[in-house]
Amino acid sequence: MTQRGRFITFEGTEGVGKSTQLQIAANTLTALGVEFIVTREPGGTPMAEAIRELLLAPREEAVNDTTELLLMFAARAQHLHTRILPELKAGRWVLCDRFTDATFAYQGGGRGVPAERIALLEDLVQGDVRPDRVILLDAPVETGMTRARHRGDLDRFEQEALAFFERIRATYLQRASADPERYQIVDAARPLEVVTEDVVSRITAMVAEAS
Amino acid sequence: MTQRGRFITFEGTEGVGKSTQLQIAANTLTALGVEFIVTREPGGTPMAEAIRELLLAPREEAVNDTTELLLMFAARAQHLHTRILPELKAGRWVLCDRFTDATFAYQGGGRGVPAERIALLEDLVQGDVRPDRVILLDAPVETGMTRARHRGDLDRFEQEALAFFERIRATYLQRASADPERYQIVDAARPLEVVTEDVVSRITAMVAEAS
Repeated sequence: MTQRGRFITFEGTEGVGKSTQLQIAANTLTALGVEFIVTREPGGTPMAEAIRELLLAPREEAVNDTTELLLMFAARAQHLHTRILPELKAGRWVLCDRFTDATFAYQGGGRGVPAERIALLEDLVQGDVRPDRVILLDAPVETGMTRARHRGDLDRFEQEALAFFERIRATYLQRASADPERYQIVDAARPLEVVTEDVVSRITAMVAEAS
Repeated sequence: MTQRGRFITFEGTEGVGKSTQLQIAANTLTALGVEFIVTREPGGTPMAEAIRELLLAPREEAVNDTTELLLMFAARAQHLHTRILPELKAGRWVLCDRFTDATFAYQGGGRGVPAERIALLEDLVQGDVRPDRVILLDAPVETGMTRARHRGDLDRFEQEALAFFERIRATYLQRASADPERYQIVDAARPLEVVTEDVVSRITAMVAEAS
Protein backbone atom coordinates (compact mmCIF):
# COMPACT_ATOMS: atom_id res chain seq x y z
CA MET A 1 0.00 0.00 0.00
CA THR A 2 1.26 3.46 -0.91
CA GLN A 3 1.82 5.69 2.10
CA ARG A 4 -0.35 8.83 1.97
CA GLY A 5 1.63 11.98 1.15
CA ARG A 6 1.95 14.87 3.61
CA PHE A 7 -0.06 18.06 3.13
CA ILE A 8 2.08 21.10 4.03
CA THR A 9 0.75 24.66 3.72
CA PHE A 10 2.64 27.95 3.80
CA GLU A 11 0.98 30.94 5.40
CA GLY A 12 1.80 34.53 6.33
CA THR A 13 1.03 38.17 5.52
CA GLU A 14 2.29 40.01 2.41
CA GLY A 15 6.03 40.11 1.82
CA VAL A 16 7.13 37.61 4.50
CA GLY A 17 8.84 35.43 1.86
CA LYS A 18 6.21 32.72 1.59
CA SER A 19 6.88 31.91 -2.09
CA THR A 20 10.64 31.92 -1.58
CA GLN A 21 10.47 29.54 1.37
CA LEU A 22 7.98 27.29 -0.39
CA GLN A 23 10.56 26.97 -3.19
CA ILE A 24 13.24 26.17 -0.59
CA ALA A 25 10.98 23.47 0.83
CA ALA A 26 10.46 22.06 -2.68
CA ASN A 27 14.24 21.96 -3.28
CA THR A 28 14.69 20.18 0.05
CA LEU A 29 12.12 17.51 -0.86
CA THR A 30 13.80 17.02 -4.25
CA ALA A 31 17.19 16.59 -2.55
CA LEU A 32 15.67 14.01 -0.20
CA GLY A 33 14.00 12.09 -3.05
CA VAL A 34 10.43 12.81 -1.92
CA GLU A 35 7.81 13.11 -4.70
CA PHE A 36 5.66 16.21 -4.40
CA ILE A 37 3.61 18.87 -6.18
CA VAL A 38 3.58 22.63 -5.56
CA THR A 39 0.25 24.43 -5.75
CA ARG A 40 -1.48 27.54 -4.45
CA GLU A 41 -4.76 28.98 -3.20
CA PRO A 42 -7.01 30.36 -4.42
CA GLY A 43 -6.31 28.38 -7.60
CA GLY A 44 -4.58 25.10 -8.32
CA THR A 45 -6.82 23.84 -11.17
CA PRO A 46 -8.03 25.71 -14.32
CA MET A 47 -11.52 26.12 -12.81
CA ALA A 48 -10.15 27.22 -9.44
CA GLU A 49 -7.77 29.63 -11.19
CA ALA A 50 -10.75 31.13 -13.04
CA ILE A 51 -12.43 31.69 -9.65
CA ARG A 52 -9.16 33.25 -8.40
CA GLU A 53 -9.27 35.73 -11.31
CA LEU A 54 -12.81 36.72 -10.31
CA LEU A 55 -11.69 37.25 -6.72
CA LEU A 56 -8.56 39.27 -7.39
CA ALA A 57 -9.72 41.48 -10.29
CA PRO A 58 -10.28 45.07 -9.19
CA ARG A 59 -13.91 46.00 -10.02
CA GLU A 60 -16.35 48.86 -9.55
CA GLU A 61 -19.00 46.69 -7.89
CA ALA A 62 -18.36 46.26 -4.15
CA VAL A 63 -17.91 42.55 -3.46
CA ASN A 64 -20.13 41.33 -0.63
CA ASP A 65 -18.14 39.63 2.18
CA THR A 66 -20.23 36.46 1.94
CA THR A 67 -19.71 36.35 -1.85
CA GLU A 68 -15.94 36.57 -1.35
CA LEU A 69 -16.03 33.87 1.32
CA LEU A 70 -18.08 31.49 -0.83
CA LEU A 71 -15.86 32.05 -3.89
CA MET A 72 -12.79 31.23 -1.77
CA PHE A 73 -14.35 27.97 -0.63
CA ALA A 74 -15.68 27.16 -4.13
CA ALA A 75 -12.11 27.37 -5.47
CA ARG A 76 -10.92 25.35 -2.47
CA ALA A 77 -13.49 22.57 -2.98
CA GLN A 78 -12.39 22.21 -6.60
CA HIS A 79 -8.67 22.31 -5.71
CA LEU A 80 -8.94 19.92 -2.78
CA HIS A 81 -11.14 17.27 -4.37
CA THR A 82 -9.81 17.26 -7.93
CA ARG A 83 -6.11 17.84 -7.22
CA ILE A 84 -4.79 17.80 -3.62
CA LEU A 85 -6.56 14.65 -2.33
CA PRO A 86 -5.72 12.50 -5.40
CA GLU A 87 -2.03 13.53 -5.12
CA LEU A 88 -1.89 12.73 -1.39
CA LYS A 89 -3.58 9.40 -2.02
CA ALA A 90 -0.97 8.59 -4.68
CA GLY A 91 1.71 9.12 -2.03
CA ARG A 92 2.95 12.50 -3.22
CA TRP A 93 3.47 15.40 -0.82
CA VAL A 94 1.57 18.62 -1.49
CA LEU A 95 3.18 22.01 -0.80
CA CYS A 96 0.43 24.63 -0.94
CA ASP A 97 0.84 28.41 -0.93
CA ARG A 98 -2.02 29.37 1.43
CA PHE A 99 -5.05 27.35 2.45
CA THR A 100 -7.97 27.71 4.90
CA ASP A 101 -5.85 29.44 7.55
CA ALA A 102 -5.60 32.33 5.09
CA THR A 103 -9.40 32.55 4.99
CA PHE A 104 -9.59 32.68 8.79
CA ALA A 105 -6.84 35.33 8.77
CA TYR A 106 -7.89 37.53 5.82
CA GLN A 107 -11.69 37.24 5.70
CA GLY A 108 -12.07 36.52 9.42
CA GLY A 109 -9.43 38.59 11.21
CA GLY A 110 -9.03 41.09 8.37
CA ARG A 111 -12.61 41.74 7.23
CA GLY A 112 -14.45 40.73 10.38
CA VAL A 113 -16.34 37.72 8.97
CA PRO A 114 -17.28 35.66 12.08
CA ALA A 115 -14.96 32.66 12.50
CA GLU A 116 -17.99 30.37 12.96
CA ARG A 117 -19.17 31.12 9.40
CA ILE A 118 -15.72 30.18 8.09
CA ALA A 119 -15.55 27.04 10.26
CA LEU A 120 -18.94 25.98 8.96
CA LEU A 121 -17.73 26.20 5.34
CA GLU A 122 -14.43 24.53 6.28
CA ASP A 123 -16.39 21.51 7.55
CA LEU A 124 -18.74 21.54 4.55
CA VAL A 125 -15.91 21.61 1.99
CA GLN A 126 -13.14 19.69 3.74
CA GLY A 127 -14.91 17.24 6.03
CA ASP A 128 -12.09 16.35 8.43
CA VAL A 129 -9.21 17.12 6.03
CA ARG A 130 -6.71 19.60 7.50
CA PRO A 131 -3.07 20.32 6.54
CA ASP A 132 -0.63 17.97 8.29
CA ARG A 133 1.69 20.90 8.94
CA VAL A 134 1.31 24.67 8.54
CA ILE A 135 4.51 26.69 8.10
CA LEU A 136 3.59 30.16 9.34
CA LEU A 137 6.13 32.74 8.20
CA ASP A 138 5.79 35.54 10.70
CA ALA A 139 7.24 39.06 10.60
CA PRO A 140 6.12 42.52 11.75
CA VAL A 141 3.62 43.89 9.23
CA GLU A 142 5.80 46.93 8.42
CA THR A 143 8.66 44.65 7.31
CA GLY A 144 6.49 42.61 4.95
CA MET A 145 4.64 45.60 3.50
CA THR A 146 7.91 47.33 2.62
CA ARG A 147 9.06 44.23 0.71
CA ALA A 148 5.70 43.87 -1.08
CA ARG A 149 5.78 47.52 -2.11
CA HIS A 150 9.28 47.05 -3.57
CA ARG A 151 7.85 44.31 -5.80
CA GLY A 152 5.64 47.14 -7.13
CA ASP A 153 2.59 45.00 -7.70
CA LEU A 154 -0.18 45.61 -5.16
CA ASP A 155 -3.54 43.93 -5.89
CA ARG A 156 -6.95 44.63 -4.31
CA PHE A 157 -6.08 42.82 -1.08
CA GLU A 158 -2.62 44.36 -0.86
CA GLN A 159 -3.98 47.89 -1.18
CA GLU A 160 -5.67 47.62 2.21
CA ALA A 161 -4.40 49.51 5.21
CA LEU A 162 -1.75 48.39 7.68
CA ALA A 163 -4.27 47.87 10.48
CA PHE A 164 -5.96 45.25 8.32
CA PHE A 165 -2.67 43.32 8.08
CA GLU A 166 -2.07 43.66 11.81
CA ARG A 167 -5.38 41.89 12.44
CA ILE A 168 -4.43 39.20 9.93
CA ARG A 169 -1.06 38.60 11.57
CA ALA A 170 -2.69 38.41 15.00
CA THR A 171 -5.23 35.84 13.76
CA TYR A 172 -2.49 33.67 12.26
CA LEU A 173 -0.49 33.77 15.51
CA GLN A 174 -3.57 33.00 17.58
CA ARG A 175 -4.43 29.94 15.47
CA ALA A 176 -0.82 28.73 15.54
CA SER A 177 -0.53 29.02 19.30
CA ALA A 178 -3.78 27.11 19.78
CA ASP A 179 -2.39 24.06 17.92
CA PRO A 180 1.43 23.99 18.27
CA GLU A 181 1.61 20.37 17.02
CA ARG A 182 0.40 21.26 13.53
CA TYR A 183 1.61 24.86 13.23
CA GLN A 184 5.26 25.82 13.00
CA ILE A 185 5.93 29.52 13.47
CA VAL A 186 9.03 30.60 11.53
CA ASP A 187 10.46 34.01 12.44
CA ALA A 188 10.71 35.58 8.97
CA ALA A 189 12.15 38.89 10.20
CA ARG A 190 15.61 37.28 10.43
CA PRO A 191 18.12 37.42 7.56
CA LEU A 192 17.07 35.33 4.54
CA GLU A 193 19.81 32.70 4.97
CA VAL A 194 18.80 32.07 8.59
CA VAL A 195 15.11 31.70 7.66
CA THR A 196 16.08 29.38 4.80
CA GLU A 197 18.22 27.19 7.06
CA ASP A 198 15.32 27.01 9.52
CA VAL A 199 12.84 25.91 6.82
CA VAL A 200 15.29 23.32 5.39
CA SER A 201 15.75 21.79 8.83
CA ARG A 202 11.99 21.69 9.52
CA ILE A 203 11.20 20.03 6.18
CA THR A 204 14.04 17.56 6.70
CA ALA A 205 12.58 16.68 10.11
CA MET A 206 9.13 16.15 8.56
CA VAL A 207 10.58 13.73 6.01
CA ALA A 208 12.46 11.82 8.74
CA GLU A 209 9.26 11.68 10.81
CA ALA A 210 7.22 10.37 7.85
CA SER A 211 9.55 7.54 6.88
CA MET B 1 -42.43 55.04 5.33
CA THR B 2 -42.11 53.22 2.01
CA GLN B 3 -43.81 49.85 1.98
CA ARG B 4 -41.36 47.02 1.28
CA GLY B 5 -41.69 45.56 -2.23
CA ARG B 6 -42.71 41.95 -2.83
CA PHE B 7 -40.15 39.33 -3.84
CA ILE B 8 -41.65 36.96 -6.45
CA THR B 9 -39.62 34.12 -7.98
CA PHE B 10 -40.39 31.99 -11.04
CA GLU B 11 -39.36 28.35 -11.00
CA GLY B 12 -39.71 25.25 -13.15
CA THR B 13 -37.82 22.77 -15.34
CA GLU B 14 -36.54 23.53 -18.85
CA GLY B 15 -39.08 24.67 -21.43
CA VAL B 16 -42.08 25.23 -19.14
CA GLY B 17 -42.36 28.87 -20.23
CA LYS B 18 -40.75 30.50 -17.21
CA SER B 19 -39.30 33.49 -19.10
CA THR B 20 -42.52 34.05 -21.04
CA GLN B 21 -44.66 34.05 -17.91
CA LEU B 22 -42.21 36.25 -16.04
CA GLN B 23 -42.64 38.78 -18.85
CA ILE B 24 -46.44 38.45 -18.55
CA ALA B 25 -46.12 39.14 -14.81
CA ALA B 26 -43.99 42.22 -15.56
CA ASN B 27 -46.58 43.53 -18.04
CA THR B 28 -49.29 42.98 -15.44
CA LEU B 29 -47.37 44.98 -12.81
CA THR B 30 -46.80 47.78 -15.33
CA ALA B 31 -50.52 47.87 -16.13
CA LEU B 32 -51.32 48.08 -12.41
CA GLY B 33 -48.78 50.87 -11.82
CA VAL B 34 -46.50 48.82 -9.55
CA GLU B 35 -42.77 49.66 -9.69
CA PHE B 36 -40.57 46.61 -10.15
CA ILE B 37 -37.34 45.16 -11.53
CA VAL B 38 -36.82 41.91 -13.43
CA THR B 39 -33.72 39.89 -12.66
CA ARG B 40 -32.43 36.32 -12.83
CA GLU B 41 -30.29 33.71 -11.09
CA PRO B 42 -27.52 32.87 -11.27
CA GLY B 43 -26.67 36.46 -12.20
CA GLY B 44 -28.32 39.82 -11.62
CA THR B 45 -25.18 41.96 -11.09
CA PRO B 46 -21.97 42.14 -13.20
CA MET B 47 -20.04 40.13 -10.58
CA ALA B 48 -22.84 37.55 -10.24
CA GLU B 49 -23.11 37.32 -14.05
CA ALA B 50 -19.37 36.60 -14.19
CA ILE B 51 -19.93 33.75 -11.71
CA ARG B 52 -22.86 32.55 -13.89
CA GLU B 53 -20.49 32.39 -16.89
CA LEU B 54 -18.09 30.22 -14.88
CA LEU B 55 -20.96 27.90 -13.92
CA LEU B 56 -22.52 27.48 -17.35
CA ALA B 57 -19.42 27.27 -19.55
CA PRO B 58 -18.78 23.73 -20.81
CA ARG B 59 -15.27 22.70 -19.65
CA GLU B 60 -12.99 19.66 -19.70
CA GLU B 61 -12.40 19.72 -15.94
CA ALA B 62 -15.19 17.94 -14.04
CA VAL B 63 -16.80 20.45 -11.70
CA ASN B 64 -17.01 19.18 -8.12
CA ASP B 65 -20.61 19.25 -6.75
CA THR B 66 -19.59 21.34 -3.76
CA THR B 67 -17.80 23.81 -6.05
CA GLU B 68 -20.96 24.23 -8.11
CA LEU B 69 -23.08 24.66 -4.98
CA LEU B 70 -20.77 27.31 -3.51
CA LEU B 71 -20.58 29.23 -6.80
CA MET B 72 -24.39 29.28 -6.97
CA PHE B 73 -24.58 30.73 -3.47
CA ALA B 74 -21.69 33.15 -4.10
CA ALA B 75 -23.62 34.60 -7.03
CA ARG B 76 -26.78 34.61 -4.89
CA ALA B 77 -25.11 36.45 -1.99
CA GLN B 78 -23.93 39.16 -4.38
CA HIS B 79 -27.30 39.43 -6.13
CA LEU B 80 -29.37 39.41 -2.94
CA HIS B 81 -27.32 41.87 -0.91
CA THR B 82 -26.26 44.35 -3.61
CA ARG B 83 -29.43 44.33 -5.74
CA ILE B 84 -32.56 42.49 -4.55
CA LEU B 85 -32.68 43.71 -0.93
CA PRO B 86 -32.00 47.39 -1.78
CA GLU B 87 -34.79 47.30 -4.41
CA LEU B 88 -37.27 45.69 -2.00
CA LYS B 89 -36.35 48.22 0.67
CA ALA B 90 -37.00 51.05 -1.80
CA GLY B 91 -40.53 49.67 -2.26
CA ARG B 92 -40.02 48.09 -5.67
CA TRP B 93 -41.16 44.56 -6.44
CA VAL B 94 -38.57 42.06 -7.63
CA LEU B 95 -39.46 39.44 -10.25
CA CYS B 96 -36.65 36.89 -10.29
CA ASP B 97 -36.09 34.08 -12.81
CA ARG B 98 -35.04 31.27 -10.44
CA PHE B 99 -33.74 31.50 -6.87
CA THR B 100 -32.85 29.06 -4.06
CA ASP B 101 -35.67 26.64 -4.92
CA ALA B 102 -33.75 25.97 -8.16
CA THR B 103 -30.70 24.98 -6.11
CA PHE B 104 -32.75 22.55 -4.02
CA ALA B 105 -34.28 21.18 -7.24
CA TYR B 106 -31.21 21.03 -9.56
CA GLN B 107 -28.26 20.46 -7.22
CA GLY B 108 -30.32 18.67 -4.55
CA GLY B 109 -32.95 16.63 -6.39
CA GLY B 110 -31.03 16.52 -9.66
CA ARG B 111 -27.44 15.89 -8.57
CA GLY B 112 -28.07 14.35 -5.18
CA VAL B 113 -26.46 17.05 -3.01
CA PRO B 114 -28.03 16.53 0.45
CA ALA B 115 -30.77 19.10 1.13
CA GLU B 116 -29.20 19.86 4.55
CA ARG B 117 -26.03 21.17 2.85
CA ILE B 118 -28.15 23.48 0.70
CA ALA B 119 -30.28 24.59 3.66
CA LEU B 120 -27.12 25.40 5.60
CA LEU B 121 -25.89 27.71 2.80
CA GLU B 122 -29.38 29.18 2.38
CA ASP B 123 -29.30 30.26 6.04
CA LEU B 124 -25.70 31.49 5.79
CA VAL B 125 -26.39 33.64 2.69
CA GLN B 126 -30.00 34.71 3.18
CA GLY B 127 -30.52 34.79 6.93
CA ASP B 128 -34.34 34.68 7.12
CA VAL B 129 -34.97 36.19 3.66
CA ARG B 130 -37.21 33.98 1.50
CA PRO B 131 -39.30 34.85 -1.61
CA ASP B 132 -42.75 36.17 -0.67
CA ARG B 133 -44.29 34.07 -3.44
CA VAL B 134 -42.88 31.34 -5.70
CA ILE B 135 -44.65 30.80 -9.05
CA LEU B 136 -43.87 27.19 -9.93
CA LEU B 137 -44.59 26.48 -13.60
CA ASP B 138 -45.14 22.77 -13.74
CA ALA B 139 -45.43 20.48 -16.77
CA PRO B 140 -44.44 16.90 -17.58
CA VAL B 141 -40.70 16.77 -18.30
CA GLU B 142 -41.21 15.43 -21.85
CA THR B 143 -43.30 18.50 -22.74
CA GLY B 144 -40.70 20.97 -21.53
CA MET B 145 -37.72 19.12 -23.01
CA THR B 146 -39.35 19.07 -26.46
CA ARG B 147 -39.81 22.86 -26.30
CA ALA B 148 -36.22 23.42 -25.09
CA ARG B 149 -34.85 21.21 -27.88
CA HIS B 150 -36.79 23.26 -30.44
CA ARG B 151 -34.97 26.36 -29.19
CA GLY B 152 -31.84 24.46 -30.31
CA ASP B 153 -29.57 25.75 -27.59
CA LEU B 154 -28.82 23.16 -24.90
CA ASP B 155 -26.17 24.13 -22.30
CA ARG B 156 -24.31 21.86 -19.86
CA PHE B 157 -27.32 21.54 -17.53
CA GLU B 158 -29.78 21.02 -20.36
CA GLN B 159 -27.74 18.19 -21.87
CA GLU B 160 -28.47 15.98 -18.86
CA ALA B 161 -30.82 13.02 -19.13
CA LEU B 162 -34.57 13.03 -18.70
CA ALA B 163 -34.40 11.17 -15.38
CA PHE B 164 -32.43 14.08 -13.99
CA PHE B 165 -35.28 16.47 -14.88
CA GLU B 166 -37.86 14.09 -13.42
CA ARG B 167 -36.06 14.30 -10.07
CA ILE B 168 -35.93 18.09 -10.37
CA ARG B 169 -39.64 18.33 -11.09
CA ALA B 170 -40.45 16.04 -8.17
CA THR B 171 -38.31 18.17 -5.80
CA TYR B 172 -40.07 21.35 -6.90
CA LEU B 173 -43.51 19.78 -6.38
CA GLN B 174 -42.50 18.41 -3.00
CA ARG B 175 -41.29 21.82 -1.79
CA ALA B 176 -44.42 23.53 -3.13
CA SER B 177 -46.79 21.10 -1.46
CA ALA B 178 -44.98 21.54 1.88
CA ASP B 179 -45.67 25.32 1.89
CA PRO B 180 -48.85 26.03 -0.11
CA GLU B 181 -49.07 29.60 1.27
CA ARG B 182 -45.88 30.73 -0.43
CA TYR B 183 -45.82 28.45 -3.48
CA GLN B 184 -48.30 28.70 -6.33
CA ILE B 185 -48.26 25.73 -8.69
CA VAL B 186 -49.28 26.79 -12.20
CA ASP B 187 -50.14 23.97 -14.61
CA ALA B 188 -47.94 24.92 -17.58
CA ALA B 189 -49.02 21.99 -19.76
CA ARG B 190 -52.20 23.88 -20.68
CA PRO B 191 -52.44 26.09 -23.80
CA LEU B 192 -50.33 29.24 -23.57
CA GLU B 193 -53.30 31.65 -23.36
CA VAL B 194 -54.79 29.71 -20.43
CA VAL B 195 -51.48 29.71 -18.52
CA THR B 196 -51.06 33.42 -19.24
CA GLU B 197 -54.55 34.23 -17.96
CA ASP B 198 -53.78 32.21 -14.81
CA VAL B 199 -50.53 34.11 -14.16
CA VAL B 200 -52.17 37.51 -14.79
CA SER B 201 -54.90 36.71 -12.28
CA ARG B 202 -52.42 35.50 -9.65
CA ILE B 203 -50.22 38.60 -9.99
CA THR B 204 -53.29 40.84 -9.87
CA ALA B 205 -54.36 39.12 -6.66
CA MET B 206 -50.89 39.64 -5.14
CA VAL B 207 -51.07 43.37 -5.91
CA ALA B 208 -54.55 43.61 -4.39
CA GLU B 209 -53.34 41.73 -1.31
CA ALA B 210 -50.31 44.05 -0.91
CA SER B 211 -52.21 47.35 -1.08
